[in-house]
Amino acid sequence: MTEPTSSFAPLRNDTFLRACLGQPTDYTPVWLMRQAGRYLPEYRALRAQAGNFMALATNPALATEATLQPLERFALDAAILFSDILTVPDAMGLGLSFQQGEGPQFARPVRDEAGVAALAIPDMDKLRYVFDAVASIRRALAGRVPLIGFAGSPWTLACYMVEGAASKDYRTIKTLLYARPDLLHRILTINADSVAVYLNAQIDAGAQAVMVFDSWGGVLADGAFQTFSLAYTQRVLQQLKRHGADGKEVPRIVFTKGGGQWLRDMRALDCDVLGVDWTVNLATAREQLSGHDGQRPQSLQGNLDPITLFAPPATVDAEVQRTLAAFGAPEQNAAHSCQHIFNLGHGINQHTPPEHVAAMVEAVHRYSRR
Amino acid sequence: MTEPTSSFAPLRNDTFLRACLGQPTDYTPVWLMRQAGRYLPEYRALRAQAGNFMALATNPALATEATLQPLERFALDAAILFSDILTVPDAMGLGLSFQQGEGPQFARPVRDEAGVAALAIPDMDKLRYVFDAVASIRRALAGRVPLIGFAGSPWTLACYMVEGAASKDYRTIKTLLYARPDLLHRILTINADSVAVYLNAQIDAGAQAVMVFDSWGGVLADGAFQTFSLAYTQRVLQQLKRHGADGKEVPRIVFTKGGGQWLRDMRALDCDVLGVDWTVNLATAREQLSGHDGQRPQSLQGNLDPITLFAPPATVDAEVQRTLAAFGAPEQNAAHSCQHIFNLGHGINQHTPPEHVAAMVEAVHRYSRR
Repeated sequence: MTEPTSSFAPLRNDTFLRACLGQPTDYTPVWLMRQAGRYLPEYRALRAQAGNFMALATNPALATEATLQPLERFALDAAILFSDILTVPDAMGLGLSFQQGEGPQFARPVRDEAGVAALAIPDMDKLRYVFDAVASIRRALAGRVPLIGFAGSPWTLACYMVEGAASKDYRTIKTLLYARPDLLHRILTINADSVAVYLNAQIDAGAQAVMVFDSWGGVLADGAFQTFSLAYTQRVLQQLKRHGADGKEVPRIVFTKGGGQWLRDMRALDCDVLGVDWTVNLATAREQLSGHDGQRPQSLQGNLDPITLFAPPATVDAEVQRTLAAFGAPEQNAAHSCQHIFNLGHGINQHTPPEHVAAMVEAVHRYSRR
Repeated sequence: MTEPTSSFAPLRNDTFLRACLGQPTDYTPVWLMRQAGRYLPEYRALRAQAGNFMALATNPALATEATLQPLERFALDAAILFSDILTVPDAMGLGLSFQQGEGPQFARPVRDEAGVAALAIPDMDKLRYVFDAVASIRRALAGRVPLIGFAGSPWTLACYMVEGAASKDYRTIKTLLYARPDLLHRILTINADSVAVYLNAQIDAGAQAVMVFDSWGGVLADGAFQTFSLAYTQRVLQQLKRHGADGKEVPRIVFTKGGGQWLRDMRALDCDVLGVDWTVNLATAREQLSGHDGQRPQSLQGNLDPITLFAPPATVDAEVQRTLAAFGAPEQNAAHSCQHIFNLGHGINQHTPPEHVAAMVEAVHRYSRR
C-alpha cells in the first residue's frame, strides 16, 4: 500500500535539484546512469537471489535495496529508481523477457497495421510495482538525497517494440519510418501519452525529478530526429506535472545519446536539464544553451566516457578535473543559469571496478567545491 | 606485372574529381560507400566462386570484376577499389580472417608492451595484390570514371588491432588509451606511416583519389578524438603524394562516422573532401566549411541514411531531393568552393534492393542537373 507522500522526510541534500533548476550550489552534484547495477557485487548477489532481472525489478522491496546499494558505497547526490525503460511496452502486452547475455526481447513485436492498431496506453495498474517501488525507495532514502524517476523516450521504446530486441542497424523501424510514417506516428503518439501518464504516476508516488532516456535518438538522420524523436519527447514533457505531492518543483531531464549535434533543437524542449554523451564539448554545449531568448537556460548533465573508469584512479582523477574544467566555473550570482550535474556520458559499464567509481565521486566533490 | 600508369586511357567523366577539388560541375556526382558488395547478387556469386572474402580481395582479376559490377548496373560517377581496410594490419602479421557472420578477426591482437614493440610498417610487397588490383581496375575502367583508393584511419585500424575484432564498447583500446597512452601513440604512429606508404603506392599504381575511412572516430570522447584520431589522420595526409604518375592532382577524402560535431576541427585537415554521416545537417556543415580564413574550402560527401534505400522508390526519390536541397544550390562561379558529392552516410546495407539504388542514382542526376 502506498503511503501518502506528504509524510516523506525533509530533504537534507538538495544540491542535485538546485543544479537541475539552474540555481547556484556549493559544489557540482554527481550521480551515475545505471549506478545501481551489475558492476556492484552486492547487486549481482541480489539479482541471483531474485532469480532474474524482472523478478528483481517487479519486487518493490528488492528494487528498493538495489536502488540504495550504490549510496552505501559512494557519496552520490541522487538516487535513481531501479527499473528498466521497457516496463511500459511490457505493460502494453508485448511480452518482455531478458535472455541471459542477449539483452531484452519482446515475444510480440509490433510490425504491421494490425499490431499498431492493437496498441493502447497500458493500464497503469500493471505498473503498480514501479510506483510502489518509488514510494518505498523514497521512504527508505529518508531525505538523504532526491529520487529520480525515469522512462524511455517514445522513439527509443518504439525501437525495441518494432525491432523486437536491440538492433545493429535499426533496419526494421527505419524501413517503417520511411515506408509507413503514418504507422510510426501512431506508435509514437501512444508511447508519448503512455510515458507521460507513467512519469506522472512516478511523480505522484514520490519521484523528485524525472528523466527521459532517448538512448537511440542518435541513430536517426538529421530531420528524422526532429520529427520522430524530439517532437514526441516534447509531447511527453508538455503533459508532465510540474510539482510533486509535496508541492516541490520536479525537474525534468532529457538525455539523447548521440544528440550533441542537435543541442540547438533540444534547447526548445520544455525541460530543465539536457544530458550529453562524451562526444560533446561541454564548453561549446554550455555556450549553446546560455542566453537563449530570455528562457531559463537548461543545465547540462554529463559527460565522462564510462570507459575512463577502467583507467587507474590517478587517471580518473585527471579526467574528472578535465571534465569540470571543460564546463568551466559555474555561475554563482544569477538566480538561474546553466549549471553542471556531473555524470557519465552513458550507463556505467558492468565490468567497472567499484573503487574507481569511488575515486570519481570523491574527485568531483573535491575539485568542484567553491 | 603492373603496367606503367602513363598508358591509362584519358578520363571521360571527371565530375567526381572536379567536385572533390571544389570546381563547378554540371550535376552532383554520386557513388556509394561499399557499392561493390553483398547487396548485389552478381557479387555474391563471385564471392562464392572465390571461396571467401580474402580469396576474392587478394586476386586482382576477381577484385577488378567486383569493382566494376556496380558500374554495369548504375550510372555511378566513381569506382572504388574492392578491398578491405584491414589488409594493412594483416600485412603487419596479425592474422586476419573473416568468420562467416562474425565479421573480421585477428588471431594475434596487439595487447601489451611486447606486442606494440613488435609492430612495424609492413613490407609493401605483402600488399602487392592491392596495387596490382588498382592497376588492373584502372585499365579495365578505360577512362569511364575515376578510381578511388582507400585505407582505414590509424585510429580505426588500431581499434581492430587492439580489440581483435569489432567491439561494442571499445573497452580494451579505450582502457589502453586512458591507462597507457604512450603505447597507443606508438601504435598510431606506425599505423599512420604505414597507411601513408600504402596510399602512396595506390596512387602510384593508378588511384585517382584516395579516401581515409575513420569508421570508429565517433566512439571517442571530445578531446580524445582530436588527440588519438584526427592528429594521426593528419599525419597520414601530410605524407601523401599530391599527384598521380599522370601528373593529375589526386584529391584526398576523409570520412569520420559520428564526426559531425567535430567539423570545425576537421576543416584544418590537409584534405579536399569531408565525408559526413546522416546525422549531419548539410546546410550547417556547408556553412561551417565555407569561408575558412582564405584556405580552399573542403567539399562535402554524403549523406543519405543507407536504410532510406529500403523504402519504396518514390520515397527514395523524395529523400534524394531533400538531401540535395539540404546542401543547397552549389556555387557555380567561384573557381573553388564547397561542392557536394552525393553518397550514403555509411556503407550500403547488404540487404538493400538493387533497384532502389538505381532509383537513387537516377534521382541524384535528374534533380541536380544545372
